Amino acid sequence: MSSTRRLDVLANEWVIFATSRQNRMYKPPVDLCPLCPLSVTEPQFTEIPTPAFQVAVFENRFPSLSTIETYEQHQLPEPYQVSPAYGHCEVIVYSENHELTFSDLTLERIQLVIHAWIDRTLDLESDSRVSYVMPFENKGELVGTTLSHPHGQIYAYPDIPPVVAVRLTAAKEFLASTGNCLQCTILTAENVEKQRMVATNSTWIAFVPFAPRFPFEVHVVPLRHVPSLTDLSELEIRELSQLLSKVTKGYDNLWGFSLPYVMAIHQRPSNDFDWREPCHLRIEFKPFHRSADKVKFLAGSELAAGAFVVDVLPEEAAAQLLEAMR
Amino acid sequence: MSSTRRLDVLANEWVIFATSRQNRMYKPPVDLCPLCPLSVTEPQFTEIPTPAFQVAVFENRFPSLSTIETYEQHQLPEPYQVSPAYGHCEVIVYSENHELTFSDLTLERIQLVIHAWIDRTLDLESDSRVSYVMPFENKGELVGTTLSHPHGQIYAYPDIPPVVAVRLTAAKEFLASTGNCLQCTILTAENVEKQRMVATNSTWIAFVPFAPRFPFEVHVVPLRHVPSLTDLSELEIRELSQLLSKVTKGYDNLWGFSLPYVMAIHQRPSNDFDWREPCHLRIEFKPFHRSADKVKFLAGSELAAGAFVVDVLPEEAAAQLLEAMR
Repeated sequence: MSSTRRLDVLANEWVIFATSRQNRMYKPPVDLCPLCPLSVTEPQFTEIPTPAFQVAVFENRFPSLSTIETYEQHQLPEPYQVSPAYGHCEVIVYSENHELTFSDLTLERIQLVIHAWIDRTLDLESDSRVSYVMPFENKGELVGTTLSHPHGQIYAYPDIPPVVAVRLTAAKEFLASTGNCLQCTILTAENVEKQRMVATNSTWIAFVPFAPRFPFEVHVVPLRHVPSLTDLSELEIRELSQLLSKVTKGYDNLWGFSLPYVMAIHQRPSNDFDWREPCHLRIEFKPFHRSADKVKFLAGSELAAGAFVVDVLPEEAAAQLLEAMR
Repeated sequence: MSSTRRLDVLANEWVIFATSRQNRMYKPPVDLCPLCPLSVTEPQFTEIPTPAFQVAVFENRFPSLSTIETYEQHQLPEPYQVSPAYGHCEVIVYSENHELTFSDLTLERIQLVIHAWIDRTLDLESDSRVSYVMPFENKGELVGTTLSHPHGQIYAYPDIPPVVAVRLTAAKEFLASTGNCLQCTILTAENVEKQRMVATNSTWIAFVPFAPRFPFEVHVVPLRHVPSLTDLSELEIRELSQLLSKVTKGYDNLWGFSLPYVMAIHQRPSNDFDWREPCHLRIEFKPFHRSADKVKFLAGSELAAGAFVVDVLPEEAAAQLLEAMR
């Protein structure tokens, strides 16, 4: 199944068209779950035909990006452009247990997930046509998850995606004008102010950023200048598992329900070591709720103008999260 | 009620913090509706204390941007920055009838709404500190509308918002490299291909763009190179009312329910006539549904990477919309 990209000329950004995804599984019942092992699901339904597993990674059967590059070509009038949507889309299943979420995982299991992110990053980067690898998780129906079995995804893009590009530019410019890593400078500021910090250990810090887009956003960042997942030490991997567990458990405690979020890992672009200096690894959690019963919707100002409006101060959100993590 | 902006240094973009909005009215019952006239609502509830009206415009009681510039200042560590969130937020009520939506309005009423957009743009632009005026409408609970009475909003931003800036850059670069307006070139292409067109008349065209972010997105664009709402002729205003009515009625016919969408008007930046050449007025409708019962959620790839994935081809969406507009 191939997919294509079309240039949105109004913004000079590529949009991916993957029509096979319209027919993907939509909230199947447990006994038809494609992420359950053979012991639970019939062989014709599961994507993981093995009686048991801990963490499983495989190619998405309904991918947005694909290495199949045949696509219908026809003459396009100016200014339109189309290209194959080259890339990889993988699914990473966190557990064989259908009922769990990330916050239920043991520290050992989370470490296995982190090792899988690292292994897959290394492998996907070995494709010289991949420019950016991003592991992420869409959790909960509110963010559009179509399968409830605990899982995340890994996308390997053929170029630097637009939001990442904006951030790389900001980091590069800050480095050029100050001689310092932007994220390292932020960590120093957070250590001075302390009022947005929600968890820390000897190698990591978790905090609500100074200017989040979603009220209860949390960034988990290594204290050392680590550009990519693949640069993490074993100690850092173990300590990261602690903070990821703490943050996700805190989210669920916050209002007493399993909090939906988008988690994404921002790291150095692939195959480009020049980015080692400005790039600092960062794991971002964006929950969509602005209170127990209200959701922060992206609407006119956010979608059409890109001007985000947030109605909870980050310091207040941090205080509430800190309480929820006790 | 003042609000502030904080610089998201990771992206070099401002985020607006308006904590008073957390307490805004949330889906009040009809008899407490602040947008109903005196004849329906008690005087203490309505924002429009008059027995009857056709179209009403007033300042949002819970604004994101405000001309009140007092805010708590404290010493911030590098690299953080804060500033007043200067600007204007207005509400535009389309009808005194609580039960209607935009698609129910008569052509005469839609023309009055367009005239209100024009009058407010002119007035808000007379504030020299305003850089960009954007009328928009968030329609339906799915896009977070907190009041069901038919209304839109007008934001006057103190600078060019990020998404607008990206588009202005693309338009400027296209003009510099080809000598032509990008949007005019797109209109020529749409007139050649015709397969994405959904409605047209002597001065306007409505079409699904070549690379939309939402499957059933529609752009309504003047055939003449009109930079701003304030440049429209009376004929263009009348003919725009026809297409806006046709598009919104078509949306409601598509799957037999009142389709939620974000509508936004993109025009020339305020107080800067240099933008007249690259800027071409455009009204964008972004419905969130990808089929009758499925929603296009913005999740990991869209929010964290900015890489939109669409699973309906624009030509197919246009065919469905054309059928719904018969």
